Amino acid sequence: MGKQIEIICVGNELLIGKILNTNANWLAKRATSLGMTVKRVTVVSDDVAEIATATRESLKRKPKLIITTGGLGPTFDDKTLEGIAKALNRKLEVNQKAFGMVRKKYETYAKEGKIEKVELTPPRVKMAKLPEGSKPLPNPVGTAPGVNIKVGGTLLVALPGVPSEMEAIFEESVAPLIKKEAGATVFFERSVFADGIMESALAPLIDRVMRDNSYVYIKSHPKSQEKKPHLEVHFSTTANSHETARKRVDGAVAQLSRLIEENGGTIRPQDDKQEC
Amino acid sequence: MGKQIEIICVGNELLIGKILNTNANWLAKRATSLGMTVKRVTVVSDDVAEIATATRESLKRKPKLIITTGGLGPTFDDKTLEGIAKALNRKLEVNQKAFGMVRKKYETYAKEGKIEKVELTPPRVKMAKLPEGSKPLPNPVGTAPGVNIKVGGTLLVALPGVPSEMEAIFEESVAPLIKKEAGATVFFERSVFADGIMESALAPLIDRVMRDNSYVYIKSHPKSQEKKPHLEVHFSTTANSHETARKRVDGAVAQLSRLIEENGGTIRPQDDKQEC
Repeated sequence: MGKQIEIICVGNELLIGKILNTNANWLAKRATSLGMTVKRVTVVSDDVAEIATATRESLKRKPKLIITTGGLGPTFDDKTLEGIAKALNRKLEVNQKAFGMVRKKYETYAKEGKIEKVELTPPRVKMAKLPEGSKPLPNPVGTAPGVNIKVGGTLLVALPGVPSEMEAIFEESVAPLIKKEAGATVFFERSVFADGIMESALAPLIDRVMRDNSYVYIKSHPKSQEKKPHLEVHFSTTANSHETARKRVDGAVAQLSRLIEENGGTIRPQDDKQEC
Repeated sequence: MGKQIEIICVGNELLIGKILNTNANWLAKRATSLGMTVKRVTVVSDDVAEIATATRESLKRKPKLIITTGGLGPTFDDKTLEGIAKALNRKLEVNQKAFGMVRKKYETYAKEGKIEKVELTPPRVKMAKLPEGSKPLPNPVGTAPGVNIKVGGTLLVALPGVPSEMEAIFEESVAPLIKKEAGATVFFERSVFADGIMESALAPLIDRVMRDNSYVYIKSHPKSQEKKPHLEVHFSTTANSHETARKRVDGAVAQLSRLIEENGGTIRPQDDKQEC
């Protein structure tokens, strides 16, 4: 079991279904591949009280890491830092390091002709107003810095909602911290396809293989019901080395494949056997 | 402000980033279009305690509707109903109406030659074990019925995780209930593209238009920073009629467009002006 992480996504556009939550998916995949266990994803609106409540609830569950996405920009509805400050009972203040990062960005934009002159208007300064005790994280591809706040045993990291900015700050400033913490944990997964056996008939076979392979998690996903049952069976494990992880999964795949064939089904490997 | 709904998605595959949460997106869009307000989306693992906790927390916030997705199937890791039963302190019992639905499905599968004979094995009966006081909802395209449970002023609905089944049960059994409750509420949205103005310069203009149009919500989404700022500006409102909603949004679009042009930017309508 890896160290626990929770993801909090802020944005009305997610709650009206305007956009798919690709940020949560990307972060879940990356954190899992780095050996962490994602315990929960929470999506709330651009509302200070909602953000504060979700942050407080998450902190109470004491994960090692909380990552928020969205709400760091210059507009009135970018309220994530105000919500976090409220949850932590800290003030928002202009962080000098963050202010330097933001100023530098606008100097570059002026040089590139995107803006006429460097004017640090209130919406621009807003991006440098962080909860007391925060550390800004450089944004290599956008304007608003990420934010790093230590709260007891939890590291709280706020990232922008624009995917390219979120991913860039994660890779540059968050992944290295996780790698240092997590040590050599490896996540390994593999899928096979089972045909000619119904999910309800497969269920007791999976039960048996999971009892015999205690570190491997197996889950079936029905892919089509129309004519004949077609199921994806997904195996995963977390281990200290790639070899151990692969050996465990391969053993479980072999056992379940035999059982499925004994029960009249057929097994087909999935091409994208992968380690992430 | 429409009636509130919360969505709880159950599934390890979401938390390891194996799949995108398209179910939450679909439900958010449909519930919004029916005049409801989605307050929160929560994603938890296939774990009875996690499901129970998320359900209890959600019930405490007293939304009109809670929809869960996933975890209704025949396998050991389909634990949503066990989690809900735990949250409500109710027993799981074979529901006769649900049992009839499941049996009928396997009779059809036998007729179609998918299975040799109708055997109601424990994994199959499991799909008819519902928390006491539940009403099963017919599944027009799959095996496991949906579940409808009244808890105080909240309606708790459990839907399968397979998108086609989730959508079919929603349309057949949930949407009609929402329409009856919500009355004639309409959600209306429209986007325009703004070029040549930075998000930080647009922010105070949006502020002003939202002050002048108190029922319209406006949010800017940066689309590219590379060369020149390119922003999507999204307007939305909920009203009692389509005409009122459209008039409100059109008024706000017109005012913001003027302000953007006065500030050196250009405005371009988005083709997919739409009502959902």
